[in-house]
Amino acid sequence: MNQTGILTTAACLAAALFTASAQAADPAAGKTQYEATCAACHGANGISVAPVYPNLGGQKEEYLVAQLKAFRDGSRKNDIMQPQAQGLNNTQIANLAAYLEAAAKLR
Amino acid sequence: MNQTGILTTAACLAAALFTASAQAADPAAGKTQYEATCAACHGANGISVAPVYPNLGGQKEEYLVAQLKAFRDGSRKNDIMQPQAQGLNNTQIANLAAYLEAAAKLR
Repeated sequence: MNQTGILTTAACLAAALFTASAQAADPAAGKTQYEATCAACHGANGISVAPVYPNLGGQKEEYLVAQLKAFRDGSRKNDIMQPQAQGLNNTQIANLAAYLEAAAKLR
Repeated sequence: MNQTGILTTAACLAAALFTASAQAADPAAGKTQYEATCAACHGANGISVAPVYPNLGGQKEEYLVAQLKAFRDGSRKNDIMQPQAQGLNNTQIANLAAYLEAAAKLR
């Protein structure tokens, strides 16, 4: 393998590792964050205590990620959620969504 | 009671009756509508079968009403939901929300 080949292989490996780590959400970190910032309105385990706030427990992870990003970029408007979401990076959003999907079950 | 008094009393009674009937949602009608128009994406009993579509079963009735109205008036943007919601009147929205809140339970 020549030097270009080695560099290409190394770059591919690094990209693969980065992708894997970017995709592995951490539900425990999401739970800590949720309890500190979200539970006051959305309730323990994502079961909301007020009819105006949606339940989030058991909700689809992919949908939750999309909505938090939409609040963050302003494409979904909400005066409470926009500033909350603007404080979150992609990893925190992924962690929250992974925690919430598993936090409660719909039957 | 003079004629104005009688008319005022009658108008108040009519308003009270109208308010009562406007508030009594019909979950059975909501279920029929849901199964015809919503279940293809949001699933039986509001448990969605695709990660991009939210679960709606067990969701807060008041929140569901607010979101359907927001899709209808365009304040919440979604290319699929906007035309769907524009076909619904307030009674149909109330019926759908009443059905969905009771359709599944979060545990």
